[in-house]
Amino acid sequence: MNTPQKTTGFLQGQKIYNISKEPPLFFIMMRLNVKVALLFLLSIGVLTIVVLYSVCGNSSSDWQRLKYNNIKNRAFDLQEVEEIECDINEEYTIMFYGKSVTYDGLERFEWSHSYSKVHPPKARYDPRGVFMYFENYNVEVRERVKCVSATDGVPISTQWESQGYYYPTQIAQFGLSHYSKNLTEPEPSRKTVENAEYDLAKWLVPATAKVERYFDKQVGSNVLKFATSENYSDGIRLKMDHVLYFVMSVHIVLSGNSSFSVTLQNRETAEIYNLHYITSDIWITVQDKNIYHGISSTQEWKRITRDLIIDLQKGLNYLDKDKSKHKITRSKLKIINITLRGSGAIDNLTLSSSEHIQQFYDAAEWFVKHQDAETGGWPIPVKRKLAFAFHDLQPGWYSSMGQGHAISVLSRAYHHSGGDTRYLTAALNGLKPFRISSSDGGVLATFLNKYHWYEEYPTKPASFVLNGFIYSLLGLYDLMVIAPPGQAQEAEFLFSEGMASLKNMLMLFDMGSTTAYDLRHFTVGIAPNLARWDYHATHINQLLLLSTIENDSLFKQTAERWIGYMNGKRAEHN
Amino acid sequence: MNTPQKTTGFLQGQKIYNISKEPPLFFIMMRLNVKVALLFLLSIGVLTIVVLYSVCGNSSSDWQRLKYNNIKNRAFDLQEVEEIECDINEEYTIMFYGKSVTYDGLERFEWSHSYSKVHPPKARYDPRGVFMYFENYNVEVRERVKCVSATDGVPISTQWESQGYYYPTQIAQFGLSHYSKNLTEPEPSRKTVENAEYDLAKWLVPATAKVERYFDKQVGSNVLKFATSENYSDGIRLKMDHVLYFVMSVHIVLSGNSSFSVTLQNRETAEIYNLHYITSDIWITVQDKNIYHGISSTQEWKRITRDLIIDLQKGLNYLDKDKSKHKITRSKLKIINITLRGSGAIDNLTLSSSEHIQQFYDAAEWFVKHQDAETGGWPIPVKRKLAFAFHDLQPGWYSSMGQGHAISVLSRAYHHSGGDTRYLTAALNGLKPFRISSSDGGVLATFLNKYHWYEEYPTKPASFVLNGFIYSLLGLYDLMVIAPPGQAQEAEFLFSEGMASLKNMLMLFDMGSTTAYDLRHFTVGIAPNLARWDYHATHINQLLLLSTIENDSLFKQTAERWIGYMNGKRAEHN
Repeated sequence: MNTPQKTTGFLQGQKIYNISKEPPLFFIMMRLNVKVALLFLLSIGVLTIVVLYSVCGNSSSDWQRLKYNNIKNRAFDLQEVEEIECDINEEYTIMFYGKSVTYDGLERFEWSHSYSKVHPPKARYDPRGVFMYFENYNVEVRERVKCVSATDGVPISTQWESQGYYYPTQIAQFGLSHYSKNLTEPEPSRKTVENAEYDLAKWLVPATAKVERYFDKQVGSNVLKFATSENYSDGIRLKMDHVLYFVMSVHIVLSGNSSFSVTLQNRETAEIYNLHYITSDIWITVQDKNIYHGISSTQEWKRITRDLIIDLQKGLNYLDKDKSKHKITRSKLKIINITLRGSGAIDNLTLSSSEHIQQFYDAAEWFVKHQDAETGGWPIPVKRKLAFAFHDLQPGWYSSMGQGHAISVLSRAYHHSGGDTRYLTAALNGLKPFRISSSDGGVLATFLNKYHWYEEYPTKPASFVLNGFIYSLLGLYDLMVIAPPGQAQEAEFLFSEGMASLKNMLMLFDMGSTTAYDLRHFTVGIAPNLARWDYHATHINQLLLLSTIENDSLFKQTAERWIGYMNGKRAEHN
Repeated sequence: MNTPQKTTGFLQGQKIYNISKEPPLFFIMMRLNVKVALLFLLSIGVLTIVVLYSVCGNSSSDWQRLKYNNIKNRAFDLQEVEEIECDINEEYTIMFYGKSVTYDGLERFEWSHSYSKVHPPKARYDPRGVFMYFENYNVEVRERVKCVSATDGVPISTQWESQGYYYPTQIAQFGLSHYSKNLTEPEPSRKTVENAEYDLAKWLVPATAKVERYFDKQVGSNVLKFATSENYSDGIRLKMDHVLYFVMSVHIVLSGNSSFSVTLQNRETAEIYNLHYITSDIWITVQDKNIYHGISSTQEWKRITRDLIIDLQKGLNYLDKDKSKHKITRSKLKIINITLRGSGAIDNLTLSSSEHIQQFYDAAEWFVKHQDAETGGWPIPVKRKLAFAFHDLQPGWYSSMGQGHAISVLSRAYHHSGGDTRYLTAALNGLKPFRISSSDGGVLATFLNKYHWYEEYPTKPASFVLNGFIYSLLGLYDLMVIAPPGQAQEAEFLFSEGMASLKNMLMLFDMGSTTAYDLRHFTVGIAPNLARWDYHATHINQLLLLSTIENDSLFKQTAERWIGYMNGKRAEHN
């Protein structure tokens, strides 16, 4: 059977893309000498464990506490700085970080405001390259991600509805982060467990069951076919003792009531967890230590790519909302079993350090499949109330950010796939809502009858959310650059309109000591909605990125001033 | 000769207004018994000295230091609160006021931001009444007032040109503060020094000089005529020992090279200062301890009203810019001489505790006389650069605030005078620049082709200064209310247009922790110009006042939030 880098021919009509142009190091070594390769793997493993332990260990320290309290990107010396309660004008108290220091005999107080991070771009933004600094994102690990659907390979959001729903913006961010990681991280390392060709696993087959390796005409290569009795304990088992790679990829077809299961063990507590991938449309369900993900109820060949640690973590979180209780680190786990039950076939079962480009394409495929052909939109299926003063957005609304992000994903997919027009068509179609006003189901707002604005939340009245608007501009820019000549005009027009609006309206978001998240204070006359520091940092990062696209001093100067705000500087008063 | 309350007939064509409808207490007592009156005066004097000393004494204390450092309206307990230097993020330091306190064994820190004062209006704003809280203002004492012109009785500004110039906004504020004080302060007390009728002073007349009291047909009452030799030491002198009233009022006509002088003595140091009022157009000049104010070079009867303490203080400041060095308090001074030199005549020489309504009419007269008949504007004769990014305003520019304030003065003068149409005509004519765009020499800017805004500084591009705009709205409102039916439409139209703009644009000034002084950040793309605390307090006071005119919750809610900002509160972040 084929090695992964030869899987492009697998299943006609369904594209599977090259993971790399060169065979991974592991496979090169495999060809040289199996013993050397194993020694290499072992040493990598030990090294990984040491590094992970030194980073993640000592879990009761202040560092750990901060990290697990969703305080991101903070890096300061906690040994001297204290968290201090400060009473303001005898009316309320705030917390800040400070220390008392003595210079030249004079005692004074040092105060720190914010630790959100600015990412100055290293080069001109390239729509074919990393998206923003999304290589740092790990969308699926977020608490507001219910799980990664095993049917589509994309995250399911619980942000505005606890039951879970497909949120195009989040799916796109998932795709863009994996695309970006694929460019910035080292080539993934892989272990092929079973390819029915030359990597053959030692399955333990009960008497009531059978496995068979045969050439499947539809697939075009050897596959492993299996069938067991209906007694679930009689599964076909592969014993493992694997601690290295936790991203599993497998081509699979299951008949009804069948399952593909991975058993993980906590190396400290010896607790056992079963990840079951089943023929079902459910996203996730949990019984005791059994976590079920549905790979869809249609019985067709598909490839699933699973981050087993994520699947385990989401399963543990599913029943008990106290997430910190179930925090399990990679270093504490091993894979001890893979079990096949019912009937079906598998091929190309691998364990990898990552499968970013596959996960990216899972997102791109989702956008191709879930676009409303008529409107070009990716509907958001939940109600959203931005604030009391706004009308509800009714299920089915579109977001300029969702559209723009989707276009960024699809543009990259069109580029990376070498010109698959399905992606281009979907991206171009995704421009439609940018011309339709919010009141007519689109995302277009107009500031005082003058400036066009693409609304992350197409509220009535308009809300003018800054970060979502700029993300939508990046989507337009991506498509305008990547689309073939003659097909880029609409994106170009929308981008230039949006940039003009941004330049004219940008300063309305400057609050003199921070930025506004939106313009609700102007449109509905309530208090400004100040951006929390991570959104403020996003504003800065977006301006710095735009300044590499268009050399307007407004972007750079404003970003510099806004960086100052993060250090507690304020605009001058008169 | 007439008592002051009978001076309305004095000099045909020049209006002199009643100081009060009832004769002042002092005069009532004069009629009863001269000895009782003197005893009364003495006791008032002693009481005044005691009060003044207790308030202003102990001049080296912290209180005093704060007061003299232009820190206005501050009232907090300095005994516990310290001024503290605080280093921010190791980049810069700020000063604040704080103290460390212990509650229940826990030490915490109390921090105070601002001491600017909010004046909640006590009743619905009445254009015939007090203007804002201007009864608290003392315009002429400000350092940026060079002096009060003895020709016009109005302040001369040095704010943007050290030589001095008539600044309509400042003149109007002078008028409005005196109008307001007239309504809020007790009736003034007066001592008539000489009225050539029944109050006759004991002038010491040198052999080379002469005085004569005679009936002047032009004036319509007795006046005191005088002539001295050309030797200046041979003046006609009135010896005094007066410590009570320092506002002098006199009807006077002087021939060329003549003077009317008041000699003041510092009761502690015995230093002597001469205030000379001379036939000249100079505003002020100083030689040694001689301070000269010109009462104009035209030799006609006029009434001058002089705050002698202000004239002395401005004279002392004139040569030496270290103002604090010359700070002289009322309690340390006495009037020891009045001297007439050259030739001329005087009448109704009085010393008063105040002459607010006279000073108000000095301002109103100035606006009648100095209006550009064609444009309706009161030109500002100096160049003004609001900020680097704006074009210079060229000498002769108009200000919506100057126009609006002038209209507030003139409307009140029309009302108070019982309908003198000169004031009404000038006020109506003063509306003209509100329809003319800034680029055409008016004060009208338009925000994004939508909202009309009356510019305090009609800059290119527009600056949208908030406080000046609201002051202009008050002027329009004053005229709209006070003008007779049929003549109020234009003011009413401009007011309602402006109010609509204000309601729609107000929130653009909300910076989430303070307010913006203007919208320069929007119009020229630079850092916001944050309002310092006293302007922020002005914004709040203006909104509170407007909320008494128009019951729009926007004004009250916004004002309440902005009051919170003064206590260090911030709008919520997301």
